[in-house]
Amino acid sequence: MNIPYKIYLEESELPRQWYNVRADMKNKPAPLLNPATLAPASLDELSAVFCHDLAMQELDDTTALIDIPEEILNFYKMYRPSPLVRAYCLEKALGTPAKIYYKFEGNNTSGSHKLNSAIAQAYYAKKQGLKGVTTETGAGQWGTALSMACAYLGLDCKVYMVKVSYEQKPFRREVMRTYGANVTPSPSDTTNVGRKILSEFPGTTGSLGCAISEAVEAAVSTEGYRYVLGSVLNQVLLHQSVIGLETMAACDKYEIKPDVIIGCAGGGSNLGGLISPFMGRKLRGEADYQFIAVEPASCPSLTRGKFAYDFCDTGKVCPLAKMYTLGSGFIPSPNHAGGLRYHGMSSIVSQLYHDGLMEARSCEQTSVFEAAVQFARIEGILPAPESSHAIRVALDEALRCKETGEEKTILFGLTGTGYFDMVAYQKYNDGEMSDYIPTDEDIAASLANLPPTNEA
Amino acid sequence: MNIPYKIYLEESELPRQWYNVRADMKNKPAPLLNPATLAPASLDELSAVFCHDLAMQELDDTTALIDIPEEILNFYKMYRPSPLVRAYCLEKALGTPAKIYYKFEGNNTSGSHKLNSAIAQAYYAKKQGLKGVTTETGAGQWGTALSMACAYLGLDCKVYMVKVSYEQKPFRREVMRTYGANVTPSPSDTTNVGRKILSEFPGTTGSLGCAISEAVEAAVSTEGYRYVLGSVLNQVLLHQSVIGLETMAACDKYEIKPDVIIGCAGGGSNLGGLISPFMGRKLRGEADYQFIAVEPASCPSLTRGKFAYDFCDTGKVCPLAKMYTLGSGFIPSPNHAGGLRYHGMSSIVSQLYHDGLMEARSCEQTSVFEAAVQFARIEGILPAPESSHAIRVALDEALRCKETGEEKTILFGLTGTGYFDMVAYQKYNDGEMSDYIPTDEDIAASLANLPPTNEA
Repeated sequence: MNIPYKIYLEESELPRQWYNVRADMKNKPAPLLNPATLAPASLDELSAVFCHDLAMQELDDTTALIDIPEEILNFYKMYRPSPLVRAYCLEKALGTPAKIYYKFEGNNTSGSHKLNSAIAQAYYAKKQGLKGVTTETGAGQWGTALSMACAYLGLDCKVYMVKVSYEQKPFRREVMRTYGANVTPSPSDTTNVGRKILSEFPGTTGSLGCAISEAVEAAVSTEGYRYVLGSVLNQVLLHQSVIGLETMAACDKYEIKPDVIIGCAGGGSNLGGLISPFMGRKLRGEADYQFIAVEPASCPSLTRGKFAYDFCDTGKVCPLAKMYTLGSGFIPSPNHAGGLRYHGMSSIVSQLYHDGLMEARSCEQTSVFEAAVQFARIEGILPAPESSHAIRVALDEALRCKETGEEKTILFGLTGTGYFDMVAYQKYNDGEMSDYIPTDEDIAASLANLPPTNEA
Repeated sequence: MNIPYKIYLEESELPRQWYNVRADMKNKPAPLLNPATLAPASLDELSAVFCHDLAMQELDDTTALIDIPEEILNFYKMYRPSPLVRAYCLEKALGTPAKIYYKFEGNNTSGSHKLNSAIAQAYYAKKQGLKGVTTETGAGQWGTALSMACAYLGLDCKVYMVKVSYEQKPFRREVMRTYGANVTPSPSDTTNVGRKILSEFPGTTGSLGCAISEAVEAAVSTEGYRYVLGSVLNQVLLHQSVIGLETMAACDKYEIKPDVIIGCAGGGSNLGGLISPFMGRKLRGEADYQFIAVEPASCPSLTRGKFAYDFCDTGKVCPLAKMYTLGSGFIPSPNHAGGLRYHGMSSIVSQLYHDGLMEARSCEQTSVFEAAVQFARIEGILPAPESSHAIRVALDEALRCKETGEEKTILFGLTGTGYFDMVAYQKYNDGEMSDYIPTDEDIAASLANLPPTNEA
């Protein structure tokens, strides 16, 4: 069959249900724990933090298909389907017999796949009659996505932005403000946890874990607000399954059978969303695929972390999750892929990895940017540093095929664009970028402080 | 017929020929003049500045359809078709009976339609065996587009970037560097004209007219180089006709008949490209449309300029063009729509306007940003300031329909995204943006220095 450069599904072919991979998992991901009692968090407990319907989705590990509400479908239609691209130019430039495809999620103002879950979470908040939502953002893609969703639905949006990003990425901040969001640099004096951190570490430039704690406190202490999160959670992977469902529909339509599926992994939202329906087929024994999660060598939770219950945030106010973790006190180097600088990993992705259903690799950032620039010049798209981790491994696989002569079909997720990451590109262009790999001692020290529940 | 939110043509439906509207114009645009002799520039004279095939296209006012070379078609397939979007959400939010469509050209790394001509011009340079090309850039979209095209084809790319933009838009500069371009702030000491301007006006932050002069000098004085330009020229409008051809094909497929077609106009490349095939139908008496060019009130060449021969650049090294002009010495206010800050206008657009075949309106920038933010929040896309001029008038037209009850079909060109224009949005968000309208005396003073050929 003749494969076009870009495959766009028709509007009538768009998924109308999300796919919940937990329904097909034999070993379900472990439940979230209440940080106070260390017992599994109940619906009521989760509903104090999250919107009610989202808490339901968080706990539901049996329903395979969940209807996408009409209003979300209509929002999706403004920027979806995203294209599944055949990388003809890249294949030719590499001289590889491999066939390379990527699912490109960057063609929207948030610049990434984050919008898929932002609109869902904002919708359920609106449906519940809430006034607004709070969240944190690091690199800024999630905060931008949530701002867009809230502007569309007329919800208040309070974003705690890691202070170093707030100052270094003023344009990201300004996009959020353009969409009407209230953006506060974190740590701030607007929360107890923020004030505590500021007094203990005056002059700190903040961290994602700290911003999460502030956003959760702001949500639970303000009438009519709930907290929303852009990754890690089961509900987020559920919403992001729209990526994988579109990809699978496009593959099936054009009779494309991917051999290897690659995604970058920070909290796991893109990777989980992309692979979910394919993993479902694998779990049901209908097909087999090789899955590869790619993480930065500077923050290697899957490849060097421990599978254990851990706190999701610095302030320890969030529920605990069982996941591959480097310890909630782990301080990743200032790697330029801000979206991958998280100590933990989605419980679903962690369980699948633990069960040997997928692989993981880590890459150093200079080799990641080398791949990014090569890709940009050949395929035109300037990728986000996060996405470029997947590009790195896709290139490696394609070059391996060149050596062996294998005609593998390689599929990877291109999660977003790098337009707001030009400081990082400048460092690379000027030859001033370096790599950082934590020592075993660094990781062991951080893992020494896991919560007591793991000893049970 | 059921119209989807986004209409994507199939790859097989993409245009394979550009459309040259001059072939159907009864009054042809006046020829370019040699600045030294003030006689019509010959093919040989133009070929000293431009690539040979492009000089041919510049002069050809009789061939209606020109084949798009295969290599350009393949490049187009990496980012085209661009979507024709039905603005359902905007219609609903406005409560208008009008139907609103926009052709969105922002889904590529250059962030605009500029790539359509950049790849064509780079292709012909490569075909001629040249080593590289030179150009100028103001806002940076054209320079980015040309850098991408040159990287793809393996051509050198020298960009003279207006100094104020070079300093204020470091990220734009960095995108160009990532694509391997050599970017020089203009005026520079690398050219005679640059050194002359620097000595006369030390500390100047440059202008587009000056950067053009430097780029032309660099091209004609370097073996194996030619100059390329992103707007104004006939060849550019020819390449940009791909926008209008795709739009018309999508409209015909879904039986959409636009009543009014709106585009922003700086040098005229997007407007000309969008309207060309529709104008062709109008010129041939096959259909009628209302066309509206929208320009900034601060640089109103169509609405307040004179239809006359004028210099295209400050240094007066370029051929002269007959066009609506404010005078080559006109200094537009530092309006944030850098791409519309040009004293002249495409000869084709100028002639069509002069012949009463289209209308023109001007807008003040605060009202333009008001429209931009409204559009961003409802339709998701954060528009470029340039594009937002068309949005402003489309909103005005839709609101007029609301008053009159008319069910007009409004189509506008959304030329690009505003991701690199957040300084401007910040000014607007902070309430610090002002308007500027030149006085009649300002314009008269500038027009007093038109070249002598107009007196013949």
